[in-house]
Amino acid sequence: MNDKILLAHGSGGKLSHDLIKKSFVDLLDNPLLAQMDDSAVFDIKGRLAFTTDSYVVNPIFFPGGNIGKLAVCGTVNDLAMSGAEPRYLSLAFIIEEGLLLSDLKRIVGAIKTAADEAGVKIVTGDTKVVNRGSADRIFINTAGVGVVPEGVEISGNNARPGDKIILNGTIGDHGIAVLSKREGITFSTGLESDCAPLGGLVAEMLKASRNIHCLRDPTRGGLATTLNELAEQSGVGIRIEEAQIPVRDEVVGACEMLGFDPLYVANEGKLVAIAASEDAENILKAMKRHPYGKNAAVIGEVLADHPGRVVMKTLLGSSRVVDMLTGDLLPRIC
Amino acid sequence: MNDKILLAHGSGGKLSHDLIKKSFVDLLDNPLLAQMDDSAVFDIKGRLAFTTDSYVVNPIFFPGGNIGKLAVCGTVNDLAMSGAEPRYLSLAFIIEEGLLLSDLKRIVGAIKTAADEAGVKIVTGDTKVVNRGSADRIFINTAGVGVVPEGVEISGNNARPGDKIILNGTIGDHGIAVLSKREGITFSTGLESDCAPLGGLVAEMLKASRNIHCLRDPTRGGLATTLNELAEQSGVGIRIEEAQIPVRDEVVGACEMLGFDPLYVANEGKLVAIAASEDAENILKAMKRHPYGKNAAVIGEVLADHPGRVVMKTLLGSSRVVDMLTGDLLPRIC
Repeated sequence: MNDKILLAHGSGGKLSHDLIKKSFVDLLDNPLLAQMDDSAVFDIKGRLAFTTDSYVVNPIFFPGGNIGKLAVCGTVNDLAMSGAEPRYLSLAFIIEEGLLLSDLKRIVGAIKTAADEAGVKIVTGDTKVVNRGSADRIFINTAGVGVVPEGVEISGNNARPGDKIILNGTIGDHGIAVLSKREGITFSTGLESDCAPLGGLVAEMLKASRNIHCLRDPTRGGLATTLNELAEQSGVGIRIEEAQIPVRDEVVGACEMLGFDPLYVANEGKLVAIAASEDAENILKAMKRHPYGKNAAVIGEVLADHPGRVVMKTLLGSSRVVDMLTGDLLPRIC
Repeated sequence: MNDKILLAHGSGGKLSHDLIKKSFVDLLDNPLLAQMDDSAVFDIKGRLAFTTDSYVVNPIFFPGGNIGKLAVCGTVNDLAMSGAEPRYLSLAFIIEEGLLLSDLKRIVGAIKTAADEAGVKIVTGDTKVVNRGSADRIFINTAGVGVVPEGVEISGNNARPGDKIILNGTIGDHGIAVLSKREGITFSTGLESDCAPLGGLVAEMLKASRNIHCLRDPTRGGLATTLNELAEQSGVGIRIEEAQIPVRDEVVGACEMLGFDPLYVANEGKLVAIAASEDAENILKAMKRHPYGKNAAVIGEVLADHPGRVVMKTLLGSSRVVDMLTGDLLPRIC
């Protein structure tokens, strides 16, 4: 009995308090969380960035991470994509009755490690337990707040013709790693999710140049969808070159086997930056010096032509329109 | 097909964008949300309060509200319980494939109405869709940020011997309304959930006195659990008088029938205030003038005796220890 989550762990009573104290507050150890009030209260100055994401990945453990690491990195990255320094996260669990406490512990451990790496504190939280069959083991929501430094103006609206498009590394690793774990496929080379907190990389990029106009992480819907969003929001055209887009051989192979296009596969440690042409080289250099940017590449540019549309020069030299993801990339991975 | 949520609505692609635009952004209409960036960015000054809660109520529609209204009120109330003026909310859905779009629309409508009443803006969000059977129709997470006014110092640690304990109205309405809907019980008197945003009431209370030491909303675990939390956090004893606690006859009746104790039944529009004795009357008067406080009552006081323990003088004149909820209040209602 005691090695599993029970409905009573979500009742708000004694078992809830014990779980919260022993499994969360003690482990995530910080004075704001330990206060155990209805909200965390702290001083903050300047422009605030605020974001949220829920994590419903299946399987919850996968090569390169688990749902806990993902829940920290995903929200940290959404803050970083606004140019903000990530500071504080909330952490809310919806747990299916019967989850092993040892699995929960492993997930919270990964949350702690990722939060430490990202330099964020988990300051407030919530735990709900639902009946068996009413959820898929565990869902996590994190919301985050960060501070946008003076002079940083990053938005999906800000791409301008002539800007360069930079990607920090290989695409499709996360989606294929998760899917292959679920389908029981193993890669001899050990393909892992790219799941990583990108706040540090963004800070280095902003040191190299304040002329970064857009940042976005190509998660669900992949690189293709993100580029379409940016083209539409900014009212510009985008041209990319397939030959410049880094993709691992294992990902190409798995995509061919499963009938996917790497351009639409989810990433969890990637970002697209759109920056003034004259600063692109400096930004690229700064990225290449960072562990999460060592495979960075300029993959294309922003055009005044065909606003709202993304076009790719293929490996064969022809051009094709790259549309937003239509329908679903089955099976669901996030 | 088109009147239900499909997996593709959560893919991050075209259907996701359409859903988000038409069902959320247009309806919740505000410039920060319409920006559609990874984070909402806004200026804020002072001490920030930050909180989160997930909502998994079953059934999702109940007398007096639905899961959407609850998701706004619950998080607004957690901010208010820190003395903060609620300002901005995030809104994250986990939706089970097959949910009727008409149900989603009704829920978002309730979110809009509750947010308008509470004076908060929904500025950022997320939507995930999971396979049929992987969730219970819809789960919602909201996180909130608010600003704590100068001179307000409210925490569960601050109760002092001699303080008065004030409750803003009848207990158990929410839990019994939800449960009776699920079990098909109807009350001729039309019992409804008390679900309400309490930020306005708290603002009036703070105008009446800054000597409010603790505020907490007795949700899961009910009044008994909340009082135990406060007694434990502040290291004080608490004595309440059963005769002073407002409970509706329908709730007493339903509790007798179902074997519950109203002290442990969830509320969603109630608060417990612990305040300096000399200001208690003023605070009570201010509460009674507000629609959400008209049945307010002083229900007890804080003692130096038996720290961490809550004792109740019963209707029969005897005293009994009121413990925190142990085990679960079955069936689960939140």
